[in-house]
Amino acid sequence: MKIKYPNGAPYNPQKIITKSKFNIKKSKLGTSFEKAINESNEFYLLTNRAIIHKKPTPIKITKVDYPKRSAAKITEAFYQTPSTTDYNGIYRGRYIDFEAKSCQTSSFPFSHLYTHQINHLAKVHEHGGISFLLIEFHLAEEVYLLPTPLLLTCYEDSLNGGRKSIPYSYFKEYGLLVSIGFQPRINYLDVVDKVYFKEKDKV
Amino acid sequence: MKIKYPNGAPYNPQKIITKSKFNIKKSKLGTSFEKAINESNEFYLLTNRAIIHKKPTPIKITKVDYPKRSAAKITEAFYQTPSTTDYNGIYRGRYIDFEAKSCQTSSFPFSHLYTHQINHLAKVHEHGGISFLLIEFHLAEEVYLLPTPLLLTCYEDSLNGGRKSIPYSYFKEYGLLVSIGFQPRINYLDVVDKVYFKEKDKV
Repeated sequence: MKIKYPNGAPYNPQKIITKSKFNIKKSKLGTSFEKAINESNEFYLLTNRAIIHKKPTPIKITKVDYPKRSAAKITEAFYQTPSTTDYNGIYRGRYIDFEAKSCQTSSFPFSHLYTHQINHLAKVHEHGGISFLLIEFHLAEEVYLLPTPLLLTCYEDSLNGGRKSIPYSYFKEYGLLVSIGFQPRINYLDVVDKVYFKEKDKV
Repeated sequence: MKIKYPNGAPYNPQKIITKSKFNIKKSKLGTSFEKAINESNEFYLLTNRAIIHKKPTPIKITKVDYPKRSAAKITEAFYQTPSTTDYNGIYRGRYIDFEAKSCQTSSFPFSHLYTHQINHLAKVHEHGGISFLLIEFHLAEEVYLLPTPLLLTCYEDSLNGGRKSIPYSYFKEYGLLVSIGFQPRINYLDVVDKVYFKEKDKV
């Protein structure tokens, strides 16, 4: 079957301008971290340990086509700014909420988070929920959990003239290393047990 | 500015087959209920009572155009089945999760919910979260909250040969009437206080 535009014109791939190489690489790396988290959440769901889902990307739909005898097709839409974080759900009876980011450099810039996302994490913490930042340092192949109070300390410092990013060394010293394995791939709930439920390491 | 298709062809509204009148009406009614809930959640957020958001509709993107010097434009996408419910968040330190539906008839058919949504509500309840169904009976202009255990009783009955819908009379007898007002428009958290936190009516 030939792919066609909604008005019947043949599909011409040359019309589509692809992203720059840098963007493609960056987006692919982010996607693989996202995929690993999603698979971990599926495992947690299957084993009935937690109910945590990724929120869909918000999209503003501007044109929809309703072809006869087939599903509605969106023909024009745009990405929207997410109003909250990527992941939320329930774990051990508590509300859990976090943002996950993949970092390609040796420090995580605050420009990779929206101010309202930081505010959201702060509000969830205030309301008694579990909230944190999950960061993959791609070069080091390490994942760290940074509880919201620490994130806020660094963020407030940045607003008062301090550095505009959190260095890898800070995560190494104050963050919590998440073990990476086969199933679940990114076992962040073991870290949540230690930080938020004060559990000791299992022997 | 003239609206054009991604390939430059002029926009022709006659090419777009509109939904049947029934669908448009149905969808509009559903939207107004959704809007009222969203506004209520905004009010709860502003007054710092709860952090509850609607999850974006999941969309499968199949084609994206990256025009020079402007935002990425999605040129082909399809609606996906949501994997969970529409709303979740945190209230009084607890996880809260619900599905909202507008009902145009005098009974609410189970066909308006996905099986996995019912399972999701049941799982959240099992994990100690607050989960329920929020139903607007459009003709009666009434909104009811039906806690998950009651929903499950009716659903199991329907699987065992019972009726495939929950009649309005059932909501009237066993559901909890939600007060409708100016701000918040649909004050479902007052009902949550009574059911899940055992609070008495305020004098």
